[in-house]
Amino acid sequence: MLCINLWFVPDDHVLPIFTGECKECVHCLSEESNMCDLLRINTDRGAMLHDGKSRFSINGKPIYHFLGTSTFSEYTVVHVGQVAKINPNAPLDKVCVLSCGMSTGFGATVNVAKPKKGQSVAIFGLGAVGLAAAEGARVSGASRIIGVDLNPSRFELAKKFGVTEFVNPKDHKKPVQEVIAEMTGGGVDRSVECTGSVQAMISAFECVHDGWGVAVLVGVPNKNDAFKTHPVNLLNERTLKGTFFGNYKPRTDIPAVVERYMNKELELDKFITHSVPFSEINKAFDLMLAGEGLRCVIRMGA
Amino acid sequence: MLCINLWFVPDDHVLPIFTGECKECVHCLSEESNMCDLLRINTDRGAMLHDGKSRFSINGKPIYHFLGTSTFSEYTVVHVGQVAKINPNAPLDKVCVLSCGMSTGFGATVNVAKPKKGQSVAIFGLGAVGLAAAEGARVSGASRIIGVDLNPSRFELAKKFGVTEFVNPKDHKKPVQEVIAEMTGGGVDRSVECTGSVQAMISAFECVHDGWGVAVLVGVPNKNDAFKTHPVNLLNERTLKGTFFGNYKPRTDIPAVVERYMNKELELDKFITHSVPFSEINKAFDLMLAGEGLRCVIRMGA
Repeated sequence: MLCINLWFVPDDHVLPIFTGECKECVHCLSEESNMCDLLRINTDRGAMLHDGKSRFSINGKPIYHFLGTSTFSEYTVVHVGQVAKINPNAPLDKVCVLSCGMSTGFGATVNVAKPKKGQSVAIFGLGAVGLAAAEGARVSGASRIIGVDLNPSRFELAKKFGVTEFVNPKDHKKPVQEVIAEMTGGGVDRSVECTGSVQAMISAFECVHDGWGVAVLVGVPNKNDAFKTHPVNLLNERTLKGTFFGNYKPRTDIPAVVERYMNKELELDKFITHSVPFSEINKAFDLMLAGEGLRCVIRMGA
Repeated sequence: MLCINLWFVPDDHVLPIFTGECKECVHCLSEESNMCDLLRINTDRGAMLHDGKSRFSINGKPIYHFLGTSTFSEYTVVHVGQVAKINPNAPLDKVCVLSCGMSTGFGATVNVAKPKKGQSVAIFGLGAVGLAAAEGARVSGASRIIGVDLNPSRFELAKKFGVTEFVNPKDHKKPVQEVIAEMTGGGVDRSVECTGSVQAMISAFECVHDGWGVAVLVGVPNKNDAFKTHPVNLLNERTLKGTFFGNYKPRTDIPAVVERYMNKELELDKFITHSVPFSEINKAFDLMLAGEGLRCVIRMGA
């Protein structure tokens, strides 16, 4: 309790975040990492760190915690390290999407790929995370944002997120990295991969310009996938990086991302395509499984 | 001739460099690249760009240019873009080693890996380039410099270059990246690979710490090698980069490296283990092929 009181007072507005920040481990103390040793994403834990027990039950039977936050309820219990204190004026039904995918995609571009004003950026995968990466490219002043997706129905929506050109790898006989190199006189300045397909990861790396290109991997691959490339692609001064939660330290950095939204720099509303009352939460899962829309907000207490 | 006169006057002291800088192409205009489109290393050219002809002959038979500089002679003809104007007080018989491998290794660490003061650095390959990379780590204030080589006879010499610990992969049953991770509580902060072995490249990448580790590849691999790793190694926020000539723009940046030597910050003398008169140039090749010593300087006119 003492620990909690050092950081929060009742009525604070907070975002619960799936990956935490203890502020004490080597990762939290490093300015270069957000991969907290204590509270890094752990989907299996299911209980509080303090005593290894759950705080929830129904009819005396324990219900386990989920992703460190257990936010499918009106009240929850979380480790202090998984909560970011934000501007109390921020609309919670909008900025809630910053707790996961939107920050991941946006941060992958602005914190890791770091395109300069006027540079070109390729985004692999135009789902919600990829579109958040495109939003990061738009905010950074990219001159060309090339969206790559196997599903052409995503191209229309992507225009709202600043995507200026589209490539469907299925439309071409040659590898998509060669198509992009031809479109851009040797390759894009930056690429961000948001699919989890290892083939897309390889294409995202090989489509950046030699001398300065940076490719950032965001998607989570299958367990047995191997990333494979000819080393000369690296020696030509390309950079390959992976990112986790857009390299944001959740408690330290996310409040400032909320401010970017409040200052109308970052647009979040366009990511929220659906909203359902808690009583219809299963409809939200159905929408997600069907790949319909981008984000569905659950209205608690409704 | 006009072009040359814009840059040089007679009696200037210069270093001829195997890879050039035209100062006009997209790479030269980019602050992020040194891979000049016009004068990037080209071992096959053999003639001057201007007219495609050689400037050398013997008994009327042409002798072709080599590596853009043709420096195995007292007088040579080079493209203006392959010559860096340096401090006239710099001893040419020392700073000549900055024209290639020493700058490549030193720059790989200071320009690309960029270790912070107190960080740990692993160097794969303790030949002249790897030792120059170690020199870069020493100058950067690295706390631990771990040398990795299959040849234990190199370990003694490496101490002179600031290497503090040694690992011979042959001495261990487990992969060397696991040995290094155990030695360093999860991995080194930075690694620099200077071997050209694709297995060393993979180890150099997998031995850096998650969250912030940066691995830099310097060695030139075989044509059919494949760099292969599990993508999760990237998603854990490691960075993989390749470099060419230590990311130095030859004409723009090398004069300042010469100054670092003149200021006694960078030590070059220890790289020069042999010196022969031009009449014994073949002895220098023999030493190189036998892997004896580090650099042999040819004394022209002797």
